[in-house]
Amino acid sequence: MSDAYSDLVETLRRELPEDSIVLSDSVLRENSRDFGQISGEPVMPLAVVFPTEVGHVQAVMRVATANRIPVISRGAGTGVSGGVHVQGDAVILNLSKMDKIIEIRPHDEVAIVEPGVINHHLNTAVAQFGLMYAPDPASYKMSTIGGNIATNAGGLRCAKYGVTRESVLSLDVVLADGRLIRVGKNTFKGVAGYDLAALFTGSEGTLGVVVRAFVRLRYLPVDERDLSMVFPSLEAAVEGVQQIAKSRIQPAILELIDYSTICVLDQQYSTDYASLGGAMLLVRLDGYGAEREEAAVRDAFMSSDVQLSKSGDAAATRLIEMRRTSRGDTKDDAYRTGEDVAIPKSRMVEYVHRLQDLAREENVNMRMISHAGDGNLHPTFFVDPTEGEQLLARLHRAVEGSVKEALALGGTITGEHGVGLIKKDWLAWEQSDEVLQLQHQIKALLDPLNILNPGKAI
Amino acid sequence: MSDAYSDLVETLRRELPEDSIVLSDSVLRENSRDFGQISGEPVMPLAVVFPTEVGHVQAVMRVATANRIPVISRGAGTGVSGGVHVQGDAVILNLSKMDKIIEIRPHDEVAIVEPGVINHHLNTAVAQFGLMYAPDPASYKMSTIGGNIATNAGGLRCAKYGVTRESVLSLDVVLADGRLIRVGKNTFKGVAGYDLAALFTGSEGTLGVVVRAFVRLRYLPVDERDLSMVFPSLEAAVEGVQQIAKSRIQPAILELIDYSTICVLDQQYSTDYASLGGAMLLVRLDGYGAEREEAAVRDAFMSSDVQLSKSGDAAATRLIEMRRTSRGDTKDDAYRTGEDVAIPKSRMVEYVHRLQDLAREENVNMRMISHAGDGNLHPTFFVDPTEGEQLLARLHRAVEGSVKEALALGGTITGEHGVGLIKKDWLAWEQSDEVLQLQHQIKALLDPLNILNPGKAI
Repeated sequence: MSDAYSDLVETLRRELPEDSIVLSDSVLRENSRDFGQISGEPVMPLAVVFPTEVGHVQAVMRVATANRIPVISRGAGTGVSGGVHVQGDAVILNLSKMDKIIEIRPHDEVAIVEPGVINHHLNTAVAQFGLMYAPDPASYKMSTIGGNIATNAGGLRCAKYGVTRESVLSLDVVLADGRLIRVGKNTFKGVAGYDLAALFTGSEGTLGVVVRAFVRLRYLPVDERDLSMVFPSLEAAVEGVQQIAKSRIQPAILELIDYSTICVLDQQYSTDYASLGGAMLLVRLDGYGAEREEAAVRDAFMSSDVQLSKSGDAAATRLIEMRRTSRGDTKDDAYRTGEDVAIPKSRMVEYVHRLQDLAREENVNMRMISHAGDGNLHPTFFVDPTEGEQLLARLHRAVEGSVKEALALGGTITGEHGVGLIKKDWLAWEQSDEVLQLQHQIKALLDPLNILNPGKAI
Repeated sequence: MSDAYSDLVETLRRELPEDSIVLSDSVLRENSRDFGQISGEPVMPLAVVFPTEVGHVQAVMRVATANRIPVISRGAGTGVSGGVHVQGDAVILNLSKMDKIIEIRPHDEVAIVEPGVINHHLNTAVAQFGLMYAPDPASYKMSTIGGNIATNAGGLRCAKYGVTRESVLSLDVVLADGRLIRVGKNTFKGVAGYDLAALFTGSEGTLGVVVRAFVRLRYLPVDERDLSMVFPSLEAAVEGVQQIAKSRIQPAILELIDYSTICVLDQQYSTDYASLGGAMLLVRLDGYGAEREEAAVRDAFMSSDVQLSKSGDAAATRLIEMRRTSRGDTKDDAYRTGEDVAIPKSRMVEYVHRLQDLAREENVNMRMISHAGDGNLHPTFFVDPTEGEQLLARLHRAVEGSVKEALALGGTITGEHGVGLIKKDWLAWEQSDEVLQLQHQIKALLDPLNILNPGKAI
C-alpha cells in the first residue's frame, strides 16, 4: 500500500490546505478509536484530515471515492460503541475544527451549527436568550453536535424533551461522492417527502457526513427543583418510578442508582450515601410546574419509608451532577464493560433480578444506573483482574446474557449509545434478516463503494 | 382490462374472505378519494378490500405483485392532499376494519393498535389510566392511527408533545411483495440500526402498509387552562406569540385566528367575537405548570390592550373546540383552497402581509388560522363563484404564490398535511434534484414494481 498511500496523501495535499492534513503518530493514535473498549492493538488511520469548511469535506470524499479509500468521520470520539474505530486502511475526517455556531435565531428558537460545535458550548451560547439545546448525553461537555447526531444521542433529560432526532430539523450532508445535499426542513413541522433527516440521524457516519445542522431549541426552564430519594431497596425505588408516573409527573431527569453505584460515587466524592439505603432516585423537576410537581412527589411518598431530600437541598443537585458526569467510570477497560439496553419500563425489577442471577452464575460483579424515566439501563459488569480464571470469558458471557435478557423482555440492544462496532453482532439478535438486508440496501444506495465508515452500525 | 380485471377479482376471492371484497358502486365511489379537492371526475378503484387481519393484507399484496396492480391503502380518508386519490387501475386496501386496540400497557405507557383504530377511540381507551395519545389532527374524531402515521400527522398540541413520529415506537409493515417486517423498537429509546420507523412514518403508503403500531402514550395533564386573547390586530397577536415565548411558556395549544376566520366562526356558532378585535390567540396551558403559566401570561399582557378571558371561562374552551373541529370549512371545494405551509416563527407577520398582497393582486379572499406555536399556517383562499372572471386561475395563482412566499422565507410546502397528489409538483420547489432522486431510489428499493400508491408523496 505504500505507493498508493503516498499517492493518496499527495492528492489530499493538492486539494486541501497544508495544515489540515496531519500524519503525526500522536494524532493518528488519538484518532484511531473512540472510548469504546476493544481488545487488540489499535489500527492507525492513513491520515487525519481536519476540514474547516464544507468544501474540504467534499474534496476528501471525492478523493476517497476516486481512490476507494474508507473515510471515518468523527468528532470528539466520546462514543463508547467503537463507532469510529479504525479497522483497516482509512482516512479520518475529524470535524472538530468545524466548530462555528453559524447563527442563533432566538425568535425562531433554532440554531445553525457546524458539526464540531460542542454540545455544552451551544447550550452556553443560547442560554442568554432563555433557550437550551435539549439533548444532553453524559459527555455533553466534550461531545460534538455532529457526533450527537451521528449516534442520535440521548441523555438524561430526553424522556421529557426527546432525543437528538427530535431536535434536528435539517441537515447538510456530504455524500460519499462529494455531493452536498440538504435534507429535512428548517421549520418545527414539515412533512414534505420522506424523513431523510431522521434516516441520517443515528446512522453513525455510514450514509454521509453531516456538515451543518439546523437544530430546534427549547425554552430554558424557569425553575428547577432537584430531589434525591433514598429507598430501602432497588425494588422499592423502581416502585417509586411507577408512583411518580401514576402522579402523571414527567420529570426532566429521573435517574435510578443502585447500591453498588452509590458506593462508587461515595468513594469518588467522599460522601456517605450508602449508609442511607439500598437505592436512589435522582429527580429533576423543571419549568413552571416544578413547584407543584415537587409537592405532588412529597404527597405521593409521604407515608412511605423513602428518605426525600429537603426542598432546595444543594446536595440533590450535586448528586445529579455527579451522576451526569460519570457512571462511576470514564472509560470501560478490559475488565469492566458497561451496557446500554432499553426495556419496557414495567420490567425493570424483573430485569435487574435476571442481571443479578447472571452476575452470580458467572461470578462477576454488577452495578447499574438507569435513565428510569425511559427504561434505558446501563448495567456495568466488572471483575477484579487479580482474581479467578477465565476472567474475560466470564465477563463476556455476563454481558451477552444481559443483552439477551433485555431482548427477551421486549427491549433493545442499545438505548442511546449506538451499534458501532461493538454491538454489531448483536443486531441480528434484535432485527430480522429482512430488516438487516433493507438497511444494507439503503447503505448501498448512498454509498455504493462502501467507503463511509464501513463495517459499522448495521 | 376487463378479462384481466375479472381474473384479479377472482384471485382475490380465492385468497380472502367473501365479505372482505366489495365492488358496489357506492363503496367504490366512497373509496375513490380523500377530502383533498381535485378537479375532474373521480376514478373508481377496481375493488375495495376490507382486511380484518394481517394475513389478508399480505394476500392482497402478493396478488398485487403477481398482477402488477397498484394498491392504495387508506383509513378514513380524511386527508386533504389527495394522498389516496385513485388515478388509474388500483385496488383499495381499506384498513378501517382492522380497528382493534390490541393491548394497552399502562405501566409501560404504550399501546399496541391496529391501523384502523380511530385516534379519538385510542384516547378514550387510555384516559382511564391517566394517559393520552398526543397527536391530535383536527380530524381526530374520524381519522385512524394508520392514516395519522401515513401522513405523520400533526395537530394542535404537537408544539409541546411532538408530531406522530414522536409517538411511533415500532411498526409492523407489509411490504410490496407481501412480506411482513417489524421496524423500530418497543421502548422509548432505541438506536439499533437506521431509523426505519421514521422512514415509513409519513411515507403516505408508498413504501409499505402499516398493519400494527406500537405507540408511546403520555401523561394526561392533571390540569388544563384555556385562555382566549383578543388583539386589536393580527400584528399585535403575532407579537403576543413572541411574548409568550419570551416568558418561556410552552402552551399545549397556541392557535392564531385572523379576523376573517373569527367572522366565519361567529357565523357558524352564532357568536360575536368579531366585534371585540382584529385577531385572536387561543391558548391551552396544561399539566402541573398550568396555573403558574396562566399567571405569567396575565402578567406579560397586563399593560397591553389585549382582552384576556377570565380564568376558567368556559367560552375559551368552547372556542378551542370550535377551532379544533374546523377551519371554517370541512372540505375544500373548487372555489376554496386551504394551504398548509410552515415557516420560521419570526416571519409570521411578514408572511401574512405577503398573503394579503397576493390576495389583493389576484382579487381573491383570504383568511388564515395558524398553529402559531410551531409556525404552521393554514391560509384559505376563496372566491365567490358568481363574481368576476378566471376565478379558478386567480385562485390557483394565489395559492401557488402563497407556497412560493413560504419557501422564500425558509419554510416548507407542507407542515402537516402531506404531499399526496396535490402538492407533488411543488416538492421540486423545495427539494433539490438529488434529494428527490434519493427518495425515488428508496421507493424503488422497497417497491420495485411501483405498485404501492404510485405517483404520490414524492
